[in-house]
Amino acid sequence: MYNDVINKRLASLRSAMKAAGIDYYLFVTADYHSSEYVSDFFKAREYFSGFNGSNGDLLVWKDGAALWTDGRYFLQAGMQLEGTGIELMKMAMPGVPTVEEFLEKSMLPGETLSFDGRCIPLGRGKELEDVCKAVDKKACLDAENPDKTSIKLADLADGVWTERPALPANKVWLLTKEDTGESVAERLKRVREEMDKKGCDELVLSSLDDIAWLLLLRGADIEFNPVALSYAVVKKDSVDLYINEDIVSGEVKNTLSKDGVCFKPYNDIYGDLRADSDKDITFMIDPKRVSYSIYKELTGEGKKAKTVECRCPITLMKACKTEVEIDSERKAHIIDGVAVTKLLYRLYKLKNDPAFKSGEKKVTELEVADELLKLRQAGEGFLDQSFAPIIATAEHGAIIHYEPDEKSNAEIKKDAFLLMDTGGQYKTGTTDITRTVMMGEASEEEKKLYTAVLCGNLRLANAIFPEGTSGQNLDVLARSELWRRGLDYRHGTGHGVGFLLNVHEGPQNINLKGAAGKLTETFKEGMITSDEPGVYLDGEFGIRLENMMVCLKAEKLVKNGKSFEFTGREEGYAKEYGPFYGFETITMVPFDKTSIDKSLMTIEDIELLNEYHAKVYKQIAPFLDEEEKVWLKEETAAL
Amino acid sequence: MYNDVINKRLASLRSAMKAAGIDYYLFVTADYHSSEYVSDFFKAREYFSGFNGSNGDLLVWKDGAALWTDGRYFLQAGMQLEGTGIELMKMAMPGVPTVEEFLEKSMLPGETLSFDGRCIPLGRGKELEDVCKAVDKKACLDAENPDKTSIKLADLADGVWTERPALPANKVWLLTKEDTGESVAERLKRVREEMDKKGCDELVLSSLDDIAWLLLLRGADIEFNPVALSYAVVKKDSVDLYINEDIVSGEVKNTLSKDGVCFKPYNDIYGDLRADSDKDITFMIDPKRVSYSIYKELTGEGKKAKTVECRCPITLMKACKTEVEIDSERKAHIIDGVAVTKLLYRLYKLKNDPAFKSGEKKVTELEVADELLKLRQAGEGFLDQSFAPIIATAEHGAIIHYEPDEKSNAEIKKDAFLLMDTGGQYKTGTTDITRTVMMGEASEEEKKLYTAVLCGNLRLANAIFPEGTSGQNLDVLARSELWRRGLDYRHGTGHGVGFLLNVHEGPQNINLKGAAGKLTETFKEGMITSDEPGVYLDGEFGIRLENMMVCLKAEKLVKNGKSFEFTGREEGYAKEYGPFYGFETITMVPFDKTSIDKSLMTIEDIELLNEYHAKVYKQIAPFLDEEEKVWLKEETAAL
Repeated sequence: MYNDVINKRLASLRSAMKAAGIDYYLFVTADYHSSEYVSDFFKAREYFSGFNGSNGDLLVWKDGAALWTDGRYFLQAGMQLEGTGIELMKMAMPGVPTVEEFLEKSMLPGETLSFDGRCIPLGRGKELEDVCKAVDKKACLDAENPDKTSIKLADLADGVWTERPALPANKVWLLTKEDTGESVAERLKRVREEMDKKGCDELVLSSLDDIAWLLLLRGADIEFNPVALSYAVVKKDSVDLYINEDIVSGEVKNTLSKDGVCFKPYNDIYGDLRADSDKDITFMIDPKRVSYSIYKELTGEGKKAKTVECRCPITLMKACKTEVEIDSERKAHIIDGVAVTKLLYRLYKLKNDPAFKSGEKKVTELEVADELLKLRQAGEGFLDQSFAPIIATAEHGAIIHYEPDEKSNAEIKKDAFLLMDTGGQYKTGTTDITRTVMMGEASEEEKKLYTAVLCGNLRLANAIFPEGTSGQNLDVLARSELWRRGLDYRHGTGHGVGFLLNVHEGPQNINLKGAAGKLTETFKEGMITSDEPGVYLDGEFGIRLENMMVCLKAEKLVKNGKSFEFTGREEGYAKEYGPFYGFETITMVPFDKTSIDKSLMTIEDIELLNEYHAKVYKQIAPFLDEEEKVWLKEETAAL
Repeated sequence: MYNDVINKRLASLRSAMKAAGIDYYLFVTADYHSSEYVSDFFKAREYFSGFNGSNGDLLVWKDGAALWTDGRYFLQAGMQLEGTGIELMKMAMPGVPTVEEFLEKSMLPGETLSFDGRCIPLGRGKELEDVCKAVDKKACLDAENPDKTSIKLADLADGVWTERPALPANKVWLLTKEDTGESVAERLKRVREEMDKKGCDELVLSSLDDIAWLLLLRGADIEFNPVALSYAVVKKDSVDLYINEDIVSGEVKNTLSKDGVCFKPYNDIYGDLRADSDKDITFMIDPKRVSYSIYKELTGEGKKAKTVECRCPITLMKACKTEVEIDSERKAHIIDGVAVTKLLYRLYKLKNDPAFKSGEKKVTELEVADELLKLRQAGEGFLDQSFAPIIATAEHGAIIHYEPDEKSNAEIKKDAFLLMDTGGQYKTGTTDITRTVMMGEASEEEKKLYTAVLCGNLRLANAIFPEGTSGQNLDVLARSELWRRGLDYRHGTGHGVGFLLNVHEGPQNINLKGAAGKLTETFKEGMITSDEPGVYLDGEFGIRLENMMVCLKAEKLVKNGKSFEFTGREEGYAKEYGPFYGFETITMVPFDKTSIDKSLMTIEDIELLNEYHAKVYKQIAPFLDEEEKVWLKEETAAL
């Protein structure tokens, strides 16, 4: 099946490459701000390959093309790339080279690699530089050789992609100190203290959520992320905010001006940095957050400016929510919990409906998604979903990042698992929850696997651990019950979540292998992280159970209805070896008891589940009608 | 109290420094091979400072001297340095500079730093080079400046230390393929394949256990480690072995010659490498294993030879024991288990002896150590202890690296824990075991803590995990029960152990933080690792429980008397997500049931203990007399 559309687009691209003297052109999945989701303007990789997963690099050369994506998308990419001639490169599978390894092997000295430097993080840009150097070194070319491999920064999509969508431009709005517990001035003070410590005069911010966090600013330029397209440069006494002025009201401008914010046109950042790079300024830049283009503006021979490359100080500040933010998130999760719990009750009624059982009554995945969206919209302060809802019946659940669309949309199957991974953005916070429910009778095996996933979820959430513990240390708690059954899941167990910001946020996470073999950031008070083990049987079903948890000092946790405490001499030990932390689960939605095989749980597991369910009932019941309440009482009754 | 002896030695050293134009001289704690233990010849730091702990750097300059050591030795060093004028630098304490930081601050341009480059690993030597560069940079000196700071490699102890002990020279002996399952030729083949992969012609080996592993060679030059002082250079068709010929019998020489081993005088390696560095040879060196002197012989301006710095391929090969070695280790652990179990029986009788209870009968720590040594010596193939025995009564147990000596030797206290961390070298393998027993009645709290340590030990040993799992992922299994009680221990949970080699061996280990923030080597089949959680209450007691475990494919494990298997569909999952691994505990000695509070264990913990104890009885009882057997039956009866 030859894909005519994609092949024509690739042909035009190759003409443009030839005209510009480019041998390899790389599209990555990114906007100018390393955002996780990108607006349509930035979807060149999708335009030229047809693959629309959330992660993928497309490399195009004279007589070939290849697309790299991760395990979540192997199936989907395989289907979408059919007939395009683009080779699928399964990331992290044995024998599959990385983009860089592939380039190093394929490129010849004198060839030119090109990409849009604004879309590539500094670190990766340097890696691509290293690839070129390695190619030259292999050919024994020295720095003076005219035939050296080179990099050319260009946005080739610009000319080739006809009818490219415009950049988004949506109004921004401001949070207040009442919402966050901290004012812009207080945040700026903390950030400037960190700049001082490293002897930096200015901090270049490119990540949209960093800017949103710092200025209490929220927008709607990125789907699901309440942020605005912008750059910022934090100086000693002012902040230059590069943003489309059309999206900033006079009131917002006024408020921020009081904190020394100066408004400049969005695209002026590159020219301004170029000009400033000839001054005696020390810039702080985060190599994982600023683009290769920004880096190239600031550095290079003859530039007077210095750069200090380090992790942006906002990364950790933003991850550690204030008490006001934590409390607000608890509220958001009750609002969200009510919506999801109401949906679960409707699904409960549906699965018991004789018309559904007989196949007469049909409900599709998209209908469930719509129903949940409506329930969420009825919640106080609802703004948007926090990501594209995954509503996946039966075998769709085994596709880890399945999203129903008009094409894939399926009818909810009876006697099959329905996996729902969804979330909301509320004025009070961001939610992310996965529940899997059985739409009929679960088989023994389905119960066994559901129970194993559930135990993993509960055990991780129940951890108590000292300062210095990373997600790699705790991951096993969620997985070990699956490992014992020969199972595992090819995704992390937990990711950080923003406060009314991105649903995926660093720097902490919970997974087995860390980031490039390094342990990730240790848990700190106020970090919010997801807890989402799963099981996926290709062509059959998926089970994932996800709660969000906030990291608190152990003494602040409530266990079995009373505060956790180190008693007697333990208090003394804890002073020596602590501080100790634990998690408070803030997601408030029952698990599907009909899918549990109690005989496979330990006594401790059962206690944890009962404790959680009791809390869910207490928090959610007040917002339900009588019928729902009766059902929830039963659903959360002690096992 | 003026220490005349040390001051005189330092004065002689300073004269020698002056004569040689040396401003700072650094002694480190190492031999030429980065061995963990060093022979007396290498104890120059002790000779010139009086401090005899196992870790310490001594820096001497014109009018001062300072000694760096770690937390284990602050007290001891403080006492031993009294009257020497040597300042104690407490490593890792706030405000205390490292040796390198101290030098960078103190040295002036044009001054000369000196040390014996054969005793300093490559990496550290480069750091010291960096110090000199930093000093010059601060003074704005360039490379051409004659007043540049410099490094001079010299062994100043050589002339000054009169009556320096000779280098050890003990006979070597050979293992055979029957002992290891692999011949020298087969090992050389594997090593040469790895050299080929990296385009290397020769591999320089300096670690004594690497050489011992490769050539099936064993010696007795390092206390507790059955290795011989030697270097080796593996070439394409031959191996140059630099070793004192006096310790090699004609028979050994003959046997090894057949595998292409050429014998050269121990000290000739430096000259030979210097000569070869002018040839077109690519050397493989491990920056963590070879000395700075070796590195300097091979590299530098004008040298024709190239070096590839990478982890020595033997590191991983040596860690993954062959099936023959594993089986041999099982035997060693039964022999060792019989000795330790017999000791436990004697301690059982002692604690019930009215004369001991009344205080009339006294037994000291050193007497227990002696008794255990005698029991071990009676075991088949016993060669030596594998490290200095830790026999620690009551509060001595809280000193993690306590070793009883004539001065500290205490009487075994009744109604107190006795911690015993000991090990043996047998012809069949290396052991390392810790048991803590209550010499009377355990209090409720003592039982609580003993049980928490025991549960940690059992749970870690019971893990099932997929390929790609590191020790950082599993560590929590041993610690979480302690964390819950506000406790932790300030040491790793597990270290690799050699096969009839060093009791501490890389590259895998089990700890929370990895090595410099990186996850350590993932578990592979055949790795032998210790499992040794503990609790230490300063001034009161210590509890540590240590078994050795061998990593095996899950399917090879025996659980509850039958082979572990993934049954039914799990077999299919395990193919997709595996291979899965687990541990077989090979240490065979009962735990102290009188110290256990069963009510604090889960049903699963109790099952694991009962299963282990049943196996201990089965393996050990045949070698006991009737009285011991009756006791062991009771001691290992199901809880």
